[in-house]
Amino acid sequence: MGSARVFLLCCILAIFFHSVLCAKSRHFKWEVEYMHWAPDCVEAVVMGINGQFPGPTIRARAGDNLHIELTNKLPTEGVVIHWHGISQFGTPWADGTASISQCAINPGETFVYRFKVDKAGTYFYHGHYGMQRSAGLYGSLIVEVTDGEKEPFHYDGEFNLLLSDWWHKSSHEQEVDLSSNPMRWIGEPQTLLINGRGQFNCSLAALFSNSSSSQCNLRGSEQCAPNILHVLPNKTYRLRIASSTALASLNLAIGNHKMTLVEADGNYLEPYSVSNMDIYSGETYSVLFTTDQEGSKNYWISVSVRGREPNTPQALIILNYIPTSASNLPNLPPPVAPLWNDYNYSRSFSSKILALKGSPKPPKKHDRRIILLNTQNLIDGYTKWAINNLSLVLPATPYLGSIRYGLNNAFDHKRPPENFGPDYDVSKPASNQNSTYGSGVYMLNFNTTIDVILQNANALQANVSEIHPWHLHGHDFWVLGYGEGRFNEKNETQFNLKNPPLRNTAVIFPYGWTALRFVADNPGAWAFHCHIEPHLHMGMGVVFAEGVQHVKKIPNEALACGLTAKMLMNNVHK
Amino acid sequence: MGSARVFLLCCILAIFFHSVLCAKSRHFKWEVEYMHWAPDCVEAVVMGINGQFPGPTIRARAGDNLHIELTNKLPTEGVVIHWHGISQFGTPWADGTASISQCAINPGETFVYRFKVDKAGTYFYHGHYGMQRSAGLYGSLIVEVTDGEKEPFHYDGEFNLLLSDWWHKSSHEQEVDLSSNPMRWIGEPQTLLINGRGQFNCSLAALFSNSSSSQCNLRGSEQCAPNILHVLPNKTYRLRIASSTALASLNLAIGNHKMTLVEADGNYLEPYSVSNMDIYSGETYSVLFTTDQEGSKNYWISVSVRGREPNTPQALIILNYIPTSASNLPNLPPPVAPLWNDYNYSRSFSSKILALKGSPKPPKKHDRRIILLNTQNLIDGYTKWAINNLSLVLPATPYLGSIRYGLNNAFDHKRPPENFGPDYDVSKPASNQNSTYGSGVYMLNFNTTIDVILQNANALQANVSEIHPWHLHGHDFWVLGYGEGRFNEKNETQFNLKNPPLRNTAVIFPYGWTALRFVADNPGAWAFHCHIEPHLHMGMGVVFAEGVQHVKKIPNEALACGLTAKMLMNNVHK
Repeated sequence: MGSARVFLLCCILAIFFHSVLCAKSRHFKWEVEYMHWAPDCVEAVVMGINGQFPGPTIRARAGDNLHIELTNKLPTEGVVIHWHGISQFGTPWADGTASISQCAINPGETFVYRFKVDKAGTYFYHGHYGMQRSAGLYGSLIVEVTDGEKEPFHYDGEFNLLLSDWWHKSSHEQEVDLSSNPMRWIGEPQTLLINGRGQFNCSLAALFSNSSSSQCNLRGSEQCAPNILHVLPNKTYRLRIASSTALASLNLAIGNHKMTLVEADGNYLEPYSVSNMDIYSGETYSVLFTTDQEGSKNYWISVSVRGREPNTPQALIILNYIPTSASNLPNLPPPVAPLWNDYNYSRSFSSKILALKGSPKPPKKHDRRIILLNTQNLIDGYTKWAINNLSLVLPATPYLGSIRYGLNNAFDHKRPPENFGPDYDVSKPASNQNSTYGSGVYMLNFNTTIDVILQNANALQANVSEIHPWHLHGHDFWVLGYGEGRFNEKNETQFNLKNPPLRNTAVIFPYGWTALRFVADNPGAWAFHCHIEPHLHMGMGVVFAEGVQHVKKIPNEALACGLTAKMLMNNVHK
Repeated sequence: MGSARVFLLCCILAIFFHSVLCAKSRHFKWEVEYMHWAPDCVEAVVMGINGQFPGPTIRARAGDNLHIELTNKLPTEGVVIHWHGISQFGTPWADGTASISQCAINPGETFVYRFKVDKAGTYFYHGHYGMQRSAGLYGSLIVEVTDGEKEPFHYDGEFNLLLSDWWHKSSHEQEVDLSSNPMRWIGEPQTLLINGRGQFNCSLAALFSNSSSSQCNLRGSEQCAPNILHVLPNKTYRLRIASSTALASLNLAIGNHKMTLVEADGNYLEPYSVSNMDIYSGETYSVLFTTDQEGSKNYWISVSVRGREPNTPQALIILNYIPTSASNLPNLPPPVAPLWNDYNYSRSFSSKILALKGSPKPPKKHDRRIILLNTQNLIDGYTKWAINNLSLVLPATPYLGSIRYGLNNAFDHKRPPENFGPDYDVSKPASNQNSTYGSGVYMLNFNTTIDVILQNANALQANVSEIHPWHLHGHDFWVLGYGEGRFNEKNETQFNLKNPPLRNTAVIFPYGWTALRFVADNPGAWAFHCHIEPHLHMGMGVVFAEGVQHVKKIPNEALACGLTAKMLMNNVHK
């Protein structure tokens, strides 16, 4: 193949020229710690890396090996980092999911994440323990194509926007609120952040908006001062976008500019031109835009809440046409997002995201189909989310180790259900709202093709069904289709097997279903969960495991807790 | 001996009568978790045990074996519990000090504390990881005399008062504040708590006080509603008092009633009659009082701040003479504590605390004398406390395991200094305020007699020297004396070798020294530190170790972190 030849040539050249052209190891030394920070101009405590919030941006090339030496400088908390969208093929212990792929790193200790970034694309990383993502533990991970390779589109420059939402209540207190009886909901975020920067209770665009918020008073040097995107006229730019929100579904627009979606979750798309785009938590995109508008003006880039009744101001940054002064505010009001509950718009947007011609196609048939009904439930008065009536409680011993070593008491060995009752009416509150806790695993036969039907339903309250973006670790899946109401086998005829997009995150719309297909070809134990952090905290996830017998020796550092530690430490005395 | 005979008799009887008269095992199942609570009528998050704040009171008898099965239900934090004042002879891994005696218990995991309470007295327990004591992790531990034994004093009833201080800022945020550059001091507590109950910004005694605070409006059922001590006239009561404060030095008084100190830190005192008493963090006392006052009235019991310029209202509860209605407020104003900076008063009070006649006497001579200068310092701009210029940083691998297994890289192997420079002027800010971090250990020869001279000094700011109550784990020490200025060997002539009190906590006064003596007869690794939690967090402590070669097999559960986990897990592959 072309790329193999290039790689070989590159490596030969490297031997002679000490070149950095081909796959290389990239080393990082990171320390995670709490620090004072003012993400939205209001001082708070964030979880930062090496004194930065968000954490440092990693740029690598496809095929590179990353070595991230992560030291936990938190006083009493464990920590892990998940490399969202990276397959971790051959290194499932480096997936960075506490209770699943590894033991949390103890305070004062260091764990080295060693893994290959095998596919160019836009990714990010984030905490995956408790609600540490909400605390601010995230950053961008950008993988460029291998030298000599080309992206299937052209651009002259690029920008990176990492989107998140921010609360003034600490994530610790949010955890307590969510786990209380009665549950206290965390509410809508105070502020949306773009690259960790936002403005609480003021608007850069106050002159143009009807909102009661006041004009922001920024001197430019604040931690919350918005990024400005400086562009030259008549060029094409790539905007990389990732959403690390804890809750918010977003819509992004560039005033007066069309955008063309070309990449999602590290997979190329059939170019798709839009004037605004939805982005759900856990998704990443690349869009191209051309600076073909009047060059004497600046333009707004806006990020707004969708899918929940918004109570958070639009986040804004400025697209600045050089040589126009960046301090000239745009003379048009910021873009207006579609109505928060215009789900037809959302469905239409999502269903037009399709794979670039020539992308890998899904197997024609599935070996197993798992239908996952998500419901909101009460367990002993505690509000939880459940999948087929089991609300996920993560065990003290990570699954990867306990499955690998056959430790029977590490989690529920009862198989979680493949489906839910035929009489369940997804359009109404459940007649029996009770549920139970569970920690069982969907054991997948290695190299088989799995269909997952995500089935949405009414929540506890009548006439409420929420959006949930589901993220799969260790794999991309094909999104075969979306539908409304309860899925039935006849809906299979609507599946798109021709050019479904490969993604690692897909949304289910209110009262709808989403059909996914993937090949269980990555030995390991993998989380599959709603990427809304409080929903996962309340049990909205499942665990898949496949081919664990093929997993090579798991580093002891990933096993130093729970029953795996016990087993390995006890053996020494035998 | 008398007690041995009683014990034997008791056990023989027990065999026949299934009696519970003699030493027994007491089992507890505890879960530590965060919960909403309003300790001072303002809702906050506290660290509770089994849904209680403070944690459950343990009552046992001397000689009992306690089994406390502690499950960590915190989302992401480790936890340990220290049994303050219990010697842990033969069970040094159960001392409950993270980084010293054991690895912190991971979320979801359980550790069983198994230890003997060998001596009757008033004790308490508390978190000893990060600032989890400040978060509210504490409770009372009361050890009664073995059946058939008698206390050397009489009383008709008893009450238990666990004293603490409370901030509205979370302990997590306090940790970040203290670790910032520049350091942000936590300030004075908002409220003093008695048995976990206090009143923020109001006073039960507003009618009588000059303070601007308003009368409290309590309905009696609130979590913050004060305890009432109901007493019968003409009886003698034992008041057990423990101070778990994070910062505050306290003074306690009972309006119109004298108190007689009879026990401190689990050791009997020569009865000492006072009208009010100082209590430093980490200290416990029993006092007797007789209800010999006018029975138609009620009386205030007051707790006030001393040793720091107070900015916290007095805590008050009511001593209610039955059958007078408990809702009758006392008609006298609450007791007025000595001036906060009347250190002569404090010194006088402390120096009159002496051992009951017949108590164990200290060895006449010491084998080694360690002089510990405490200073406030700057390290790279961070404000720290240091001992002989080393600011303690606790290692990831607990000392007990790393010393027991000879793991050389677990901590600094350079011996920490035995003294400080002869030119150091303790009365002024240091000419060189720099210091370094350290994790070295004072290795003590087993069964030798150690003198420790705690030497106070001026802090960073001129004319400031603070009170520090130092607490020793694993031992009681004799308090041989207090002095002013810099200790010199001639001061030895002032040592009280006749009836010095045995304590586990002793205070150093501003610009003064305190001389302690103990026998290094308890195999293990033991913290010795300022019991002010932010001071320990800022490095104010040292570690002693003795006879570690005699420590029996440490349970693996105490070793499952850091280099001990690595060693034990790696061995399996050899």
